[in-house]
Amino acid sequence: MPKIVDHHQQKEKIAEAVWRIIRREGMERATVRQIAEEAGVSVGSLRYYFSTQSELLAFSMQLVSVRVHKRIESISFKGPLMEDIQQLFFELLPMDAERKAEMEVWLAFTAKALADPTLQALKDEVYTSLRNAMVSIIEALIKDELMDKPEDRDIEVERLYALLDGLALHGVMQPSQITPDRIRAIVQHHLKTLCQ
Amino acid sequence: MPKIVDHHQQKEKIAEAVWRIIRREGMERATVRQIAEEAGVSVGSLRYYFSTQSELLAFSMQLVSVRVHKRIESISFKGPLMEDIQQLFFELLPMDAERKAEMEVWLAFTAKALADPTLQALKDEVYTSLRNAMVSIIEALIKDELMDKPEDRDIEVERLYALLDGLALHGVMQPSQITPDRIRAIVQHHLKTLCQ
Repeated sequence: MPKIVDHHQQKEKIAEAVWRIIRREGMERATVRQIAEEAGVSVGSLRYYFSTQSELLAFSMQLVSVRVHKRIESISFKGPLMEDIQQLFFELLPMDAERKAEMEVWLAFTAKALADPTLQALKDEVYTSLRNAMVSIIEALIKDELMDKPEDRDIEVERLYALLDGLALHGVMQPSQITPDRIRAIVQHHLKTLCQ
Repeated sequence: MPKIVDHHQQKEKIAEAVWRIIRREGMERATVRQIAEEAGVSVGSLRYYFSTQSELLAFSMQLVSVRVHKRIESISFKGPLMEDIQQLFFELLPMDAERKAEMEVWLAFTAKALADPTLQALKDEVYTSLRNAMVSIIEALIKDELMDKPEDRDIEVERLYALLDGLALHGVMQPSQITPDRIRAIVQHHLKTLCQ
């Protein structure tokens, strides 16, 4: 019987090898040869799944956002609103080893995206989708009368979003300083000040 | 007469070539050969100034922080406090092409630092020095009775710092969305909420 290979699973296995190399040795070490070796596949097999290195990196970057989305979709948001918002936030922050690893990889891809149009398009998609999530949060707080209608809604949206990404960055960069407990306290404090 | 070369100036010229490559093509293209070509020097001459690539990258990273420091030192902070704080903040944010370029390069080095101990040490130094600046800001606001003493000072310090870096990140990543005017409004709004 022919060996049945789950193509998508193979691609994810290769993408996860890319993640490990990026975290251990940096983006510039993620060459086709290194990735094949790390994933335990031949260069030929890797080329079968991804015809260019750019395609492979784009898939690896996208996989971060796919994983985060899957986790968020599996949450049953059932209120109260403040709890739901926090739960969503904590999925987007380095609250455990898995999420910290994802964010390290995401940061590396984000930096690379500055000089790579394909990765930039992916980054822009995620930026927009997270920005929309921030809009929904602020709108929901106003609708539930937990927060006064601000003078400029977009200022609050961007402030919330910048705080989220700043905390993600610091949690990855200074994990001994910006611990999960600290992150939790800062997020809770910010939400409290919004709802004064 | 022998040609007199300003060694430090030559090193800065080479570091600036590194910056240009990083911004245009990404960190992984910053090889010794490429850098020498971009700086218009021979590989031998480059090796004279920097014995390893790691040393060269560390110098290039440090030059970002040196430039920012120099700009901040040249400011005459003469009050009122709120104006001074904003002026300091805007030196650390992508408010013009020069500061945006610095921040793009800094972001690339920051991502690389995750897998490079020398760069990590530099990053940690800058992190600590900026964190101390945030402590001074919060302390000064309390001392001048513009802000109530918070329940937990460090929470306000980390929130302010995360907002700063989140805005820097978004200003670099989404310059059409997070414009200098938008950044200014968000910073002013945050300071206003601290001082309510």
